[in-house]
Amino acid sequence: MAPTVEGRDATLFPEFPRGPLDTYRARASFSWKELALFTEGEDVLRFKKTIFSALEIDPLFARSPGAHLSLEKYRELNFLRCKRIFEYDFLSAGDVFESPLKVSTLIQCLGMYDWSLAAKYLLHTLIFGSVVVSAGSERHFAYIPKIFSMEIFGCFALTELSHGSNTKAIRTTAHYNPATEIRDPKTLFPMPGVMVGDIGKKLGQNGLDNGFAVFHKVRVPRQSLLNRMGDVTPEGTYVSPFKDARQRFGASLGSLSWGRVTIMGMAVTNLKLALSIAVRFSATRRQFGPTEDEEIPVLEYQTQQWRLLPYLAAAYALDHFSKSLFVDLVELQRGLAAGDRSARQAELGREIHALASAGKPLASWTAQQGIQECREACGGHGYLAVNRLGVLRDDNDPNCTYEGDNNVLLQQTSNYLLGLLACRVQDGACFRSPLKSVDFLDSYPGILDQRFEVSSVADCLDSAVALAAYKWLVCYLLRETHEKLNQEKRSGSDDFEARNNCQVFHGRPLALAFMELTVLQRFHEHVHQPCVPPSLRAVLGRLSALYALWSLNCHAALLYRAERRRSCPGGRDRSSG
Amino acid sequence: MAPTVEGRDATLFPEFPRGPLDTYRARASFSWKELALFTEGEDVLRFKKTIFSALEIDPLFARSPGAHLSLEKYRELNFLRCKRIFEYDFLSAGDVFESPLKVSTLIQCLGMYDWSLAAKYLLHTLIFGSVVVSAGSERHFAYIPKIFSMEIFGCFALTELSHGSNTKAIRTTAHYNPATEIRDPKTLFPMPGVMVGDIGKKLGQNGLDNGFAVFHKVRVPRQSLLNRMGDVTPEGTYVSPFKDARQRFGASLGSLSWGRVTIMGMAVTNLKLALSIAVRFSATRRQFGPTEDEEIPVLEYQTQQWRLLPYLAAAYALDHFSKSLFVDLVELQRGLAAGDRSARQAELGREIHALASAGKPLASWTAQQGIQECREACGGHGYLAVNRLGVLRDDNDPNCTYEGDNNVLLQQTSNYLLGLLACRVQDGACFRSPLKSVDFLDSYPGILDQRFEVSSVADCLDSAVALAAYKWLVCYLLRETHEKLNQEKRSGSDDFEARNNCQVFHGRPLALAFMELTVLQRFHEHVHQPCVPPSLRAVLGRLSALYALWSLNCHAALLYRAERRRSCPGGRDRSSG
Repeated sequence: MAPTVEGRDATLFPEFPRGPLDTYRARASFSWKELALFTEGEDVLRFKKTIFSALEIDPLFARSPGAHLSLEKYRELNFLRCKRIFEYDFLSAGDVFESPLKVSTLIQCLGMYDWSLAAKYLLHTLIFGSVVVSAGSERHFAYIPKIFSMEIFGCFALTELSHGSNTKAIRTTAHYNPATEIRDPKTLFPMPGVMVGDIGKKLGQNGLDNGFAVFHKVRVPRQSLLNRMGDVTPEGTYVSPFKDARQRFGASLGSLSWGRVTIMGMAVTNLKLALSIAVRFSATRRQFGPTEDEEIPVLEYQTQQWRLLPYLAAAYALDHFSKSLFVDLVELQRGLAAGDRSARQAELGREIHALASAGKPLASWTAQQGIQECREACGGHGYLAVNRLGVLRDDNDPNCTYEGDNNVLLQQTSNYLLGLLACRVQDGACFRSPLKSVDFLDSYPGILDQRFEVSSVADCLDSAVALAAYKWLVCYLLRETHEKLNQEKRSGSDDFEARNNCQVFHGRPLALAFMELTVLQRFHEHVHQPCVPPSLRAVLGRLSALYALWSLNCHAALLYRAERRRSCPGGRDRSSG
Repeated sequence: MAPTVEGRDATLFPEFPRGPLDTYRARASFSWKELALFTEGEDVLRFKKTIFSALEIDPLFARSPGAHLSLEKYRELNFLRCKRIFEYDFLSAGDVFESPLKVSTLIQCLGMYDWSLAAKYLLHTLIFGSVVVSAGSERHFAYIPKIFSMEIFGCFALTELSHGSNTKAIRTTAHYNPATEIRDPKTLFPMPGVMVGDIGKKLGQNGLDNGFAVFHKVRVPRQSLLNRMGDVTPEGTYVSPFKDARQRFGASLGSLSWGRVTIMGMAVTNLKLALSIAVRFSATRRQFGPTEDEEIPVLEYQTQQWRLLPYLAAAYALDHFSKSLFVDLVELQRGLAAGDRSARQAELGREIHALASAGKPLASWTAQQGIQECREACGGHGYLAVNRLGVLRDDNDPNCTYEGDNNVLLQQTSNYLLGLLACRVQDGACFRSPLKSVDFLDSYPGILDQRFEVSSVADCLDSAVALAAYKWLVCYLLRETHEKLNQEKRSGSDDFEARNNCQVFHGRPLALAFMELTVLQRFHEHVHQPCVPPSLRAVLGRLSALYALWSLNCHAALLYRAERRRSCPGGRDRSSG
């Protein structure tokens, strides 16, 4: 049954205060309340309301427009706010189990307030705390209540100064030896052999006190090792429940995906915030008009619509995708927790890894570019700090970098697809994946024979048309990338060099096109379900078509070039490198 | 004669300190000293050295890494530094007359240090001071020494809260009436009827104290009016040396271009700074390699080169263009000062206006996108405030907005081209302009019949090939835009609506393609002059080709589409709107 607005209490959907947006709101072809209910669901809407209502009346969360916070004061406030979030205890363990999506909802609500707060809370609970829970054993359980009361506050040491993407080459080593931790729990001074420091001001997220730690011959008790995935016996022998290293690596891919899927949600949240500001501004800001006496809202200009509305459509499509991939990841995690060691479980891990590895780049770049467009679309007003677009840009920016540089990460996805094609070519294996994102590739020779046949612009307003074009494009790019890679190898390049030389014009667009297709496929299906309220079908269909055509348009040159090659099958296009 | 490095004293070209960049520097195919001499000229190089040497040893300009400046302290420092720049008196009036380019060199050097300082100095001298000089008369000359000693500090009130682009609709009016300025010169308190305030923190350039002023029935003495272009007699009659309003408007276009050409130089400076950081980082940062033991500099990766090097080429091409347009503008200004009222002078004003109106968007967007790419290409290190990429992004950002929103400004250029085509169609007038930027359009039917004929990739490495493609593209876009505009009008749109509906897919790409062509044309000619030192020809030719192909590639879909239409002359392409 479709959810309906009728019968909900008015507190869930308070009326907007009257103001200059009334005219546009009155012209809407749909009920925003119905759309919110369809997009979020009542349970999540109520949960958001609980969080926002608490923060709204708590003086610790009051904003002081114009007040200038020093770095130290900002960090102190952020720490106190984080502690307060624990006191509010918005989510019980039971809630998390029943409705895991609320975890990301909570992170996003905190991020809508301030990403430094969301990050501090997230790193302490979901990275530090939950790792102690999930990777530790009985001997670590004593720490857990102290962690969730913030008596113990965790830090998360990830990389080295000279290492980022190449985690395998990290030079910190741990040797087994008898027992001795980083700071003294009483004085908070660092323990001997440990040097800690602050990395200094960042472009954004400055409420988060990122630092560095140097360990020089530091002894850590054997008992401190989080030992579920691997342990050291008192005799110094390494033991692991996994039979082989490859399987252990596969299991850890799931953990890597958590970060990336969470970042997708963060990026989408930023895009939503920026768009709310810019679209509302555009509806009220008037400049020029058909006559000297009459000025019209800038939202009426084709240029302003072209600048902003595709990002609005992208926000809906990416929002749905990031939530649905989160749900898939929960399934993966539950399988792991239940000890599922099946081939399907391993394949699910790999598929989610491929989707998260391109999903994070797509979402974070779309948000970064969208925020910049919103900033410019608001003119000088967008340049005022109080209007928040600068903070959004600064706070979203690292989403393009952490948990894997976007350009580097895309290789994970193109390699996944190329690997599947190699299996098909060598062993005749089918393209099949648990979430079915690659299943269409099984008929790739047939798809490549299809032609784009539409007779009018109106036909293109169904996202099914763009979906078909995307499938063709991904098949084409996959075949081209495979051929280019083989050609590089035949010319004497080793695997490392061959892959590097195929990335810019082959692997990269392949990964991005596949990702856009997957996001679009899920959104298209979502908005064409029978349970979509009839009054929302038109607007959701338009959002799906707009996202589809706008994204596909970036590949227009490739589509034309491919068609040209087909019409001249004898030779290769001259412009190819 | 080509300038040579030999014989210059070593102080002009000190050796770089030894360090991790030595390896790459030793591999350079050209001498950086020769390139610097060719690009800047000895006179400007010496002038830059004078400025930097003075600032380097002056404690007032010392940076305090990690120190946190409050807004108030930053503005105070910025004011004191501005005053010190006047004391240094880097440029005499004679220098400015002999070598006007030094004015923009000074602004750019100050901007390389801090754009807030450059802006404060620029607004006070070139906007406030020079307007008093050029638009005032004898009765204002008493102010001039006080202005250049900063005894009087000028402000520049440009727009209204509700007005940006539509300057004609500004509602502040001035009525003639007997006599009474904004602040009391002794106490600095605002005068009666004047309310002043600060607009608050901005995304960048916070050393500049932008504010607002409200004038409520404020009396300003008639004598204070800057009266060279228009005056009010004691009886209240408006008098002007210009015969008609259109001519007065034409003369003022020159003044508008100063700001835009200056911004081009500012944007290019930001792009240069960001690239210096990112390219050097990429040459020393190592990640992954062909074997587990060997890591290679990230600059060796095709992806990293593809991300950064086209922006390096763009920086060279745009740098040359902004300087050459500055020189053209000086010519225009000298003609105005000499009382030249010829048709050529008016046409020169219009052409420069069209070039500055698209040049500012092209330069500021290229810089904004380039800085973001540099930020990401430096990974987490790029996100550290101390590495400056954040400040560059924030300080460059308003270049996309002030002196005309980029998207709005582009209409000036497309309208200029459409106007010339209309004259040709209606009156058979030739495409001719003083700087010859539109002359090629005179043979547009012939150009449209040309085909792209190259037989190898190597052929494309001459920027003449891309230039020919660009000329074709601009002719094509001009004809298409003209047709689309007529079609809109035939369908009943008025002029306002017709132009709005032609901008996104016609006028905008027309203006940008024309601009890229003009930048490329000038750079291509510059690097193919006989006076280019032989040892620099190869590298300059590659820069020109790279900028050409990279820019042209953004229009690849259009080129393919146009070709497809030509091969199916009967019908229109289905994908057109």
